[in-house]
Amino acid sequence: MEVLEAIKTRRSIRKYKSDPVADRTLATVLEAARQAPSWANTQCWHLVVVRDAETKGKLSDTLNETNPARDALRNAPLVIVACAETGKAGYKEGQVMTDKGDWFMFDVALAMQNLVLAAHSLGLGTVYVGRFDAKKVASILSLPEGYRVVVMTPLGYPAETKEPRPRKELGEFVHYDKWGAE
Amino acid sequence: MEVLEAIKTRRSIRKYKSDPVADRTLATVLEAARQAPSWANTQCWHLVVVRDAETKGKLSDTLNETNPARDALRNAPLVIVACAETGKAGYKEGQVMTDKGDWFMFDVALAMQNLVLAAHSLGLGTVYVGRFDAKKVASILSLPEGYRVVVMTPLGYPAETKEPRPRKELGEFVHYDKWGAE
Repeated sequence: MEVLEAIKTRRSIRKYKSDPVADRTLATVLEAARQAPSWANTQCWHLVVVRDAETKGKLSDTLNETNPARDALRNAPLVIVACAETGKAGYKEGQVMTDKGDWFMFDVALAMQNLVLAAHSLGLGTVYVGRFDAKKVASILSLPEGYRVVVMTPLGYPAETKEPRPRKELGEFVHYDKWGAE
Repeated sequence: MEVLEAIKTRRSIRKYKSDPVADRTLATVLEAARQAPSWANTQCWHLVVVRDAETKGKLSDTLNETNPARDALRNAPLVIVACAETGKAGYKEGQVMTDKGDWFMFDVALAMQNLVLAAHSLGLGTVYVGRFDAKKVASILSLPEGYRVVVMTPLGYPAETKEPRPRKELGEFVHYDKWGAE
């Protein structure tokens, strides 16, 4: 699938078929994350691929009861939990280099957007889930100290088609040469 | 260009031709950013497209003198400065929803990775520049309060070809079902 088409036709998928994802397909999706750029090539991302039904259930339970992604995490054949090693991105020799502090959120997002677009190009659905009890997820997955849970997505074949959600017009967020100029 | 090929062949480009970027090409690249997913569809990103030579020079001067991207910001026909409205991503009704606080770093990265991949698929180069004096950049671009400067990239046709940088093996960052398991 063409890059521009993939970007335009990707949707947030919350209903999944139970069809498994082939190991080779999963490897392609993980490889896409691997190729992302990162702060000084620090590659702070870690991905936990959850196949075990009981673990998926526990992850689902860390979401609010009203979150529409709860069933998705339980029903999709796979869940990817994106984590980060802290103190790498945004640092040089142990010192923070910018006013943003640790850049793990930025770099994990770059890797995950590669993964999401690659998945879509292979016919797989994803949805970013950011709101959950991250401490509980860290405990479920036995995350060591120095690592953070960032975001989760189910991964599997979509059982729904969706219309695009509304987006701001370019004129609402693009400025020329300085703020507010068209 | 295919998604997987774009992800695999993208490089961080620091040498640019002076050839201009057509308005229509720029619009395609901006449209890719527009299509990114975001926290509750809040779309907190703002992009300042800098064409003015004096402004590009000022932006370049906010980088460390040893930063190899300094010349790129000066020489590329365009610079994109990615900014964020704070207090949107990661919030619900004014309250932070996760242990990560404001998610602007994550959502701006999603939009920028779309932009970077779209640019590459159109033959354009980019490089994420994160280390600069963000206060000075905010002042140069007249950013209002409530907005942050996140990252910059030159945008133009590459004047260099580069080999891929090394990446961790999948086994170094992919875990199965729980941390450390293969």
